[in-house]
Amino acid sequence: MTQKTKKIQAINGPNLNMLGKREPEIYGSLTLDEINKDLAQKALKLGVDIVFFQSNHEGAIVDKIHEMFEDNIDGIMINPGAFTHTSVALRDAMLLMSCPVIEIHLSNIHKREAFRHKSLLADIVTGQITGCGPYGYTMALNALVNMINES
Amino acid sequence: MTQKTKKIQAINGPNLNMLGKREPEIYGSLTLDEINKDLAQKALKLGVDIVFFQSNHEGAIVDKIHEMFEDNIDGIMINPGAFTHTSVALRDAMLLMSCPVIEIHLSNIHKREAFRHKSLLADIVTGQITGCGPYGYTMALNALVNMINES
Amino acid sequence: MTQKTKKIQAINGPNLNMLGKREPEIYGSLTLDEINKDLAQKALKLGVDIVFFQSNHEGAIVDKIHEMFEDNIDGIMINPGAFTHTSVALRDAMLLMSCPVIEIHLSNIHKREAFRHKSLLADIVTGQITGCGPYGYTMALNALVNMINES
Amino acid sequence: MTQKTKKIQAINGPNLNMLGKREPEIYGSLTLDEINKDLAQKALKLGVDIVFFQSNHEGAIVDKIHEMFEDNIDGIMINPGAFTHTSVALRDAMLLMSCPVIEIHLSNIHKREAFRHKSLLADIVTGQITGCGPYGYTMALNALVNMINES
Amino acid sequence: MTQKTKKIQAINGPNLNMLGKREPEIYGSLTLDEINKDLAQKALKLGVDIVFFQSNHEGAIVDKIHEMFEDNIDGIMINPGAFTHTSVALRDAMLLMSCPVIEIHLSNIHKREAFRHKSLLADIVTGQITGCGPYGYTMALNALVNMINES
Amino acid sequence: MTQKTKKIQAINGPNLNMLGKREPEIYGSLTLDEINKDLAQKALKLGVDIVFFQSNHEGAIVDKIHEMFEDNIDGIMINPGAFTHTSVALRDAMLLMSCPVIEIHLSNIHKREAFRHKSLLADIVTGQITGCGPYGYTMALNALVNMINES
Amino acid sequence: MTQKTKKIQAINGPNLNMLGKREPEIYGSLTLDEINKDLAQKALKLGVDIVFFQSNHEGAIVDKIHEMFEDNIDGIMINPGAFTHTSVALRDAMLLMSCPVIEIHLSNIHKREAFRHKSLLADIVTGQITGCGPYGYTMALNALVNMINES
Amino acid sequence: MTQKTKKIQAINGPNLNMLGKREPEIYGSLTLDEINKDLAQKALKLGVDIVFFQSNHEGAIVDKIHEMFEDNIDGIMINPGAFTHTSVALRDAMLLMSCPVIEIHLSNIHKREAFRHKSLLADIVTGQITGCGPYGYTMALNALVNMINES
Amino acid sequence: MTQKTKKIQAINGPNLNMLGKREPEIYGSLTLDEINKDLAQKALKLGVDIVFFQSNHEGAIVDKIHEMFEDNIDGIMINPGAFTHTSVALRDAMLLMSCPVIEIHLSNIHKREAFRHKSLLADIVTGQITGCGPYGYTMALNALVNMINES
Amino acid sequence: MTQKTKKIQAINGPNLNMLGKREPEIYGSLTLDEINKDLAQKALKLGVDIVFFQSNHEGAIVDKIHEMFEDNIDGIMINPGAFTHTSVALRDAMLLMSCPVIEIHLSNIHKREAFRHKSLLADIVTGQITGCGPYGYTMALNALVNMINES
Amino acid sequence: MTQKTKKIQAINGPNLNMLGKREPEIYGSLTLDEINKDLAQKALKLGVDIVFFQSNHEGAIVDKIHEMFEDNIDGIMINPGAFTHTSVALRDAMLLMSCPVIEIHLSNIHKREAFRHKSLLADIVTGQITGCGPYGYTMALNALVNMINES
Amino acid sequence: MTQKTKKIQAINGPNLNMLGKREPEIYGSLTLDEINKDLAQKALKLGVDIVFFQSNHEGAIVDKIHEMFEDNIDGIMINPGAFTHTSVALRDAMLLMSCPVIEIHLSNIHKREAFRHKSLLADIVTGQITGCGPYGYTMALNALVNMINES
Repeated sequence: MTQKTKKIQAINGPNLNMLGKREPEIYGSLTLDEINKDLAQKALKLGVDIVFFQSNHEGAIVDKIHEMFEDNIDGIMINPGAFTHTSVALRDAMLLMSCPVIEIHLSNIHKREAFRHKSLLADIVTGQITGCGPYGYTMALNALVNMINES
Repeated sequence: MTQKTKKIQAINGPNLNMLGKREPEIYGSLTLDEINKDLAQKALKLGVDIVFFQSNHEGAIVDKIHEMFEDNIDGIMINPGAFTHTSVALRDAMLLMSCPVIEIHLSNIHKREAFRHKSLLADIVTGQITGCGPYGYTMALNALVNMINES
Repeated sequence: MTQKTKKIQAINGPNLNMLGKREPEIYGSLTLDEINKDLAQKALKLGVDIVFFQSNHEGAIVDKIHEMFEDNIDGIMINPGAFTHTSVALRDAMLLMSCPVIEIHLSNIHKREAFRHKSLLADIVTGQITGCGPYGYTMALNALVNMINES
Repeated sequence: MTQKTKKIQAINGPNLNMLGKREPEIYGSLTLDEINKDLAQKALKLGVDIVFFQSNHEGAIVDKIHEMFEDNIDGIMINPGAFTHTSVALRDAMLLMSCPVIEIHLSNIHKREAFRHKSLLADIVTGQITGCGPYGYTMALNALVNMINES
Repeated sequence: MTQKTKKIQAINGPNLNMLGKREPEIYGSLTLDEINKDLAQKALKLGVDIVFFQSNHEGAIVDKIHEMFEDNIDGIMINPGAFTHTSVALRDAMLLMSCPVIEIHLSNIHKREAFRHKSLLADIVTGQITGCGPYGYTMALNALVNMINES
Repeated sequence: MTQKTKKIQAINGPNLNMLGKREPEIYGSLTLDEINKDLAQKALKLGVDIVFFQSNHEGAIVDKIHEMFEDNIDGIMINPGAFTHTSVALRDAMLLMSCPVIEIHLSNIHKREAFRHKSLLADIVTGQITGCGPYGYTMALNALVNMINES
Repeated sequence: MTQKTKKIQAINGPNLNMLGKREPEIYGSLTLDEINKDLAQKALKLGVDIVFFQSNHEGAIVDKIHEMFEDNIDGIMINPGAFTHTSVALRDAMLLMSCPVIEIHLSNIHKREAFRHKSLLADIVTGQITGCGPYGYTMALNALVNMINES
Repeated sequence: MTQKTKKIQAINGPNLNMLGKREPEIYGSLTLDEINKDLAQKALKLGVDIVFFQSNHEGAIVDKIHEMFEDNIDGIMINPGAFTHTSVALRDAMLLMSCPVIEIHLSNIHKREAFRHKSLLADIVTGQITGCGPYGYTMALNALVNMINES
Repeated sequence: MTQKTKKIQAINGPNLNMLGKREPEIYGSLTLDEINKDLAQKALKLGVDIVFFQSNHEGAIVDKIHEMFEDNIDGIMINPGAFTHTSVALRDAMLLMSCPVIEIHLSNIHKREAFRHKSLLADIVTGQITGCGPYGYTMALNALVNMINES
Repeated sequence: MTQKTKKIQAINGPNLNMLGKREPEIYGSLTLDEINKDLAQKALKLGVDIVFFQSNHEGAIVDKIHEMFEDNIDGIMINPGAFTHTSVALRDAMLLMSCPVIEIHLSNIHKREAFRHKSLLADIVTGQITGCGPYGYTMALNALVNMINES
Repeated sequence: MTQKTKKIQAINGPNLNMLGKREPEIYGSLTLDEINKDLAQKALKLGVDIVFFQSNHEGAIVDKIHEMFEDNIDGIMINPGAFTHTSVALRDAMLLMSCPVIEIHLSNIHKREAFRHKSLLADIVTGQITGCGPYGYTMALNALVNMINES
Repeated sequence: MTQKTKKIQAINGPNLNMLGKREPEIYGSLTLDEINKDLAQKALKLGVDIVFFQSNHEGAIVDKIHEMFEDNIDGIMINPGAFTHTSVALRDAMLLMSCPVIEIHLSNIHKREAFRHKSLLADIVTGQITGCGPYGYTMALNALVNMINES
């Protein structure tokens, strides 16, 4: 019997739709679409499905996570943007999930304002990648596939 | 002249639509629908109307409270979920209301993470019930009816 | 074989013997005796026994809890008054008990001095009721009976 | 060649749609509509365009700021309401903008709860006006026009 | 019609029964009995009654204050000793009283351990005298008589 | 009977006599004299008197405020400079006044050292303007006239 | 050989020249002159000299204390006003003195803003009197005479 | 001339009368009586007297220490239980004593709640033993005898 | 002209020589030798050199970094172990380097003791990977190669 | 079959090689050698082996603990000296061990600088002895033997 | 063309006019005049001019710094006394200066009260010398001359 | 009889062997060897011996201080580098010494990261010099010679 192809969800939080347009010295010049296309190709090579979601609305991301819960997603990579530091609702939603979750930050948040040093997700996700720019998404994809294969 | 039937609003915040599906050892196995049906029956016996609202969107709950303000609601029970600890907007909206308000938490928030010990609503509501599970909604209903009758 | 009638202990801490005489705008005008009589009648209807204890002496309350421990009490409602914020001895004594315990505060302690926001009992009791006035004792009685019946 | 008329965006955050209906002793009795009409007339005299936006939804305001970024708005006045103290997403969105931005608070936030003393926008906007009531919007309009003319 | 002689209560908290026996370099060599006799003579000259109470038991002092409440005492001088820093029960009891209350400390508490700098009574008493040794009781007596006569 | 012309006092604290000479990238290149002349002209048009005072001596400013108290001044604009963060004496003096008071800071104090974020005057003045440069004085003048006319 | 008459210095800090004119509900309606005259009469009866100094200038008070140091003053009563909480210079000057020093506050500083709870003089003076109104000066005079006679 | 037999006092604070009945995984299964009997036998071998006191009442322990002060006790071992963290009265009473004092905790208090890490006695006793279970009493006995013999 | 092969240094801090022997539920069962062999093979495929260093001595690691500084290393991956939280010397040494540096933690440090949440290196390295177990070293290798190729 | 003799390791941290030479009023006049000889004799009587290690180098102590881990040591007594307050590496190394560990401090660390009140080992060792001078090592030896025999 | 002789300003803050008269165990027995004469002689040898200023008035020192700013002084040594810890006005004035500035403290401020550990000038001066007594002025003179010659 | 030539030890902590190679904008371009040679020449002129020690190993510096203790060194200048902020072992070792000790920092540590503002040595050394660059060593040499000659 063939095994179902594993499915990974990539979530991007508020303002990440502006990637490439805003503060390029911090976030780089690639747009989110370009990053996602690159990820889709890499996922294809790795034999997994990847789907994308971005929103500036906390409630919409919570709704999406509930949907993922129903769909039994196999792995999540999330760049929560500003919600990293403010959203307990997102934390609570993520507590529903039992699959591996990787938190990504493009910039090194420890070089920035003090309030960005604290993540409300950090202690409930599997792992965290910071400061590696857009390449961090690729690292997260590789790590998730590695975790899914090992488990 | 007959007196208008008193009306109570029950509000549930983010992730409470997942009750019964998530962390049952903390939140119990009843779904929100089952809880609401039980409350509706008890309200009927007590001779009051009760209506229900749940949302994962902070803005939607604020909009709903504005609507309640216009409707001169007689009592509110609210389980703000994660917004308890993060939403000043919800606090500001609730400051509009002059009817009794009971804040409910299913779990004992003092047994959980430190950031859950602080409620942004606690000092502006009438009273608070924590740690009594779904039965807390019934307690809130009884308390509101008692307060409405006494005032 | 008939089952033993369940027994609930109501404990009131320091200064609660002055209820009705002191700061009525905060605590209401009912005396503790009047509240206890009302509770005794309600307990009768619910088919449980209820006994009462009040003291201004921390040691006396600790002694009483030890006695309850030996008697295998079925449920406790406690308004610890000022000891809420200062008594580790009371906390340690309560840690002996395995029955449900409800902590009650007549006033909304979150509207008062900052040192009243912290309860040394809150994280070891089953649940907590604040701000509902003397009616809070009735709520606690109902909740305890509900918990005893469910367990 | 004629120069394009300068355009200013006025943004109001959560609960400000209730102005005039809520806590008039703090916020005055003018409605937001009345304030906006007055501002529109003053803008007309000053030879600038002014457009208005109010929402109780953090995500909707972030979306609107992105739109303003695309439109190259010339100046912004913002009363972020409760989001002042909680929204990093709003701060991140505002970091996109290079035009002058004035933050307005109707009441003197330093006379109110301690959590209102800290603004997540204050260090990234151009200037801030507090405690001058609805007249604060007029002051912001004048200041923005002055800044636009000087730059 | 003759007026009832005014009555003042002097209360001394834990360990003050050891005055004169303990740390004389801090507290002086007079015993509490010697101090009280001196106060009684001075009260006689001032035309007021003075009664004395000392206990090492927090509960006993609370009971005594309740008794004073029933007796409509005219003024209180209290050296709460260690309870100054730990007893919310004493604070709550003292909140019952509407007559003038003077808090006395023999030593200058600001020269001692940091935890002695904070008094749980200081903001609810009328006034406070520190660092004047046993003469502080005489100062308190004079101040109370002055306040009683002025009111 | 003709009404007395309203009189406004402008107060500038320490180091503001060096305006235009010091850190122009923060404070601009206008001298205090130039700013005051501009204000005097604008006051003339608005039909109010304006008088000026600057001192590097805390005591001299306190003396001046006492003088204003005797003169029943109609409005005050004050840029307290460094005294914003250190002078309780200035705060106490200002507590004497019942007329509207506007606090001005040329720079955005929230972008500077942490100790500049806290103003000892902010919660007792009517309103505050920061970050608008020398134009902030004009804004304060307009706001004071508006407040005087409305009251 | 006759002994030199003892001399006591009374010092009043900033804004105390406004006593009787300002916030009478906190500070009473007596002016500083009236208080000083009353003190002078009482000193006469007690057989000591008393001299008075008030200034709104920290430096002037420091200068005065240096002068007192040269004159070998026998006792000091000081109401430092706002300098209580801000002046290390005053503390350093007072450290020069070896005679008894009593710190006086008319109001109960523990009932007021948190920054008023901390006195920079409290741990270096002999004793402190708070909350007894203008009568506190009389108490200080008596205490100083008592201390001088005992030493 | 024969020397008086040295006498050691063992004091146990609140809830320690429940040893062996409560939380045996933390405190062991020996009762306080069994521990005391064992200590009495060991003291006999070491040639010293040992007497025992336990109370749940802070005041009773303070009274007992005063009695020990009068009796010139030679050494004290004390397990203050919950009073470790809350009783300044106990600290003040213990400051009377000049003999060696050993503070004992059965459990390792550093593994427990944060408020148990701070002892109000630790800096005034001679030494402290934690985490060695009931054997800690034997260690304290040996240490006291060693100290008495060396002094 | 052929380009010199790029060289990457892997540094492991104290106790990491015990990998596989200690707390396998946190750190996994692979030994450091096994991890290093795997990394060496992967580096070979990527066309870079990799060398390894482990020490329990802070000074030895500082010496090694100085050596790397002289050798112009092209990239560094470091798991500083306990030195993450305590070594300013390591931070200062690392400030010498201008090549990319990736900090690795096998476990999710945010799930552990509070003092492990703060890294003294985090704000001076390029990026950080936590919680991905031994696979984190592979991720760091890939990221470094990616950064070296891009620069 | 004969049982292997139990082996205990005594570890002393930095500066303890200077015992007897430094601050004798705090640490006593015995040298470490004298203490160790005494311990060796007592161990002989108790039928256990004891070995000694002292170093001023954190790394050397960590290396030694790894060696003990390989040797399956039966008990450890450690006076970590200054490393008590600074060495996470030592804590991490000690987490490897499953045998009983007693932490010793010669002086009462709670009487000294605040930074000495916090031990990075305290919550992971079995027990702690402070303030008993060199006799504390004997107490630790007895306690370890008692624990080894009981387990 | 001959070069203008370099000029150095020595500033001493409040209470330093009392040097030699006050707390000689902390500050030494030299008077400020004696120190200044010694400095003048040393300056002569080094070929620089030195002028002196002392005041107990914060405003007078600020005025003096403004004067120095106009005079283009070449170097400043300042012992700000108590203003070190309280004067933002002094800090702001000093920010005007671009010449080297050395801050001097006679005593080791880190051995004294905690509030003396923080200097409001430390991060804006060139360097700081503490604990070297009056010789610190000579050190500052040498350092300034060295800096002036090097620049 | 001829007096022994006084001997001064210069100690430099971690990373100071890299002086001149690292962050020259902060630390200058002189190497440690060049600085030491310059110091040796100046010592020669002052008639004192000077010896040098640098290490990146905390333990090695502690060992060296013990050696100095045995040698009765006459004065110490120490730039502890990173150990300033982390090494209690160094502090404890330095507490052995009774000769004058000067702490040196090349840069102004108060302009740098907050954790560099706190020195674990500052309150136990004689004096401290910061921000004067390599010339600070010369200042320390002069100060030590001055102190040795005066004592």
